[in-house]
Amino acid sequence: MLKYQQIANEIEKYIEEHALQQGDKLPVLETLMTHFEASKSTIIKSLDLLEKKGVVFQVRGSGIFVRRHKRKGYISLLSNQGFKKDLEDFNVTSEVIELEVRKPTEEAALNLNIEPGDDVYYVKRVRYINGQTLCLEESFYNKSIITYLNTEIVSESIFNYIRDALGLKVGFSDIYLQVDKLNGEEANYLGLPNRSPKLCVETIFHLTNGQPFDFSKITYNYQQSQFFIQANSHFL
Amino acid sequence: MLKYQQIANEIEKYIEEHALQQGDKLPVLETLMTHFEASKSTIIKSLDLLEKKGVVFQVRGSGIFVRRHKRKGYISLLSNQGFKKDLEDFNVTSEVIELEVRKPTEEAALNLNIEPGDDVYYVKRVRYINGQTLCLEESFYNKSIITYLNTEIVSESIFNYIRDALGLKVGFSDIYLQVDKLNGEEANYLGLPNRSPKLCVETIFHLTNGQPFDFSKITYNYQQSQFFIQANSHFL
Repeated sequence: MLKYQQIANEIEKYIEEHALQQGDKLPVLETLMTHFEASKSTIIKSLDLLEKKGVVFQVRGSGIFVRRHKRKGYISLLSNQGFKKDLEDFNVTSEVIELEVRKPTEEAALNLNIEPGDDVYYVKRVRYINGQTLCLEESFYNKSIITYLNTEIVSESIFNYIRDALGLKVGFSDIYLQVDKLNGEEANYLGLPNRSPKLCVETIFHLTNGQPFDFSKITYNYQQSQFFIQANSHFL
Repeated sequence: MLKYQQIANEIEKYIEEHALQQGDKLPVLETLMTHFEASKSTIIKSLDLLEKKGVVFQVRGSGIFVRRHKRKGYISLLSNQGFKKDLEDFNVTSEVIELEVRKPTEEAALNLNIEPGDDVYYVKRVRYINGQTLCLEESFYNKSIITYLNTEIVSESIFNYIRDALGLKVGFSDIYLQVDKLNGEEANYLGLPNRSPKLCVETIFHLTNGQPFDFSKITYNYQQSQFFIQANSHFL
């Protein structure tokens, strides 16, 4: 981890530990430079990162202010950190339904940019929150990138494994959402009446070099899940 | 608009007009500097902006590549530009149901950070896509910031008016999503059977100074709407 990332983490931790509220002002640049024994450009990089992450907002000529979402128990649609971070006050567990090497579906091959004859790891999991079903998850991993998975790994955080054990750098992702009604199989897994509302989230995860390595489809139990996104002004 | 923003717009337009695909490489920094008659730092700022917007991704030591979502007709959940940009191939219209100055609901006051006795502009619209209902939208504007609205303005893009006529700078927004079933009133407006699935999107829009000015609740017709988000690696 680079120095500006470490500093960003420390500032974020400080905000959390001191329960700072939206609009609370952070110390000025010079104070942060002294405190972290860092150059101006390093502190600016830290603050830019925190702004991108939705932790602070900067007002030109006025200062740096805390930005916090106020609602608990919402799942971030932008985070790749998995549910554990968003739902840390809750008990989230996984049940692995299937784990095998197979050929991709046509849809998976298209989204992973691979050939129909290439191998993928197929993982199907049900995730639970406080004993209730949270979602049904199907993932297709390009086996030439994610070369090995086992039940132990997929019972825990696959992304931690990808980063820490495989040493891969996870980059951007494309996320598609659609609301529909559960089919019979999904309803069974989620323990909901057939034809209940569902949110279906498809994500294509890429490495930092732009190569897609994971195509995942998550079907959420609408009674257990709510989501948030922090959007920045550069989307204007 | 600043020079780096103009250059970013031109690069984005070039990518669109030449239908460049995901993974296509852009010219190197030096070529862009010469072409746009701009300094290195200006081009870097342009490219950073395009990366934040999900238009390109940068691979260290390798170059700048095009990033494109491949699916047409999806609505961006991060854009404040309204539906017109995402759905430009479609005919999107608005019907204004209500427009009046009133006191905020408790929920609206909380999210706008105003007192129950303060005034808001309340706007209720149904939006249509190719003659089908797209969504039902209720918005509460802090009247001390958005000082004037009329039917003509709210029939078109309210955000264009806020930026161009009122000269306000729109900053970040907090977005909350939940899936549920339509109630009778919503079903009526959307022309769907009662208890159909719905996606409810609440957004709190802030000015660049952090002040919330619009609390909006949109209920989508699930048969007509699908969404995308482009997430960057800094959320890891």
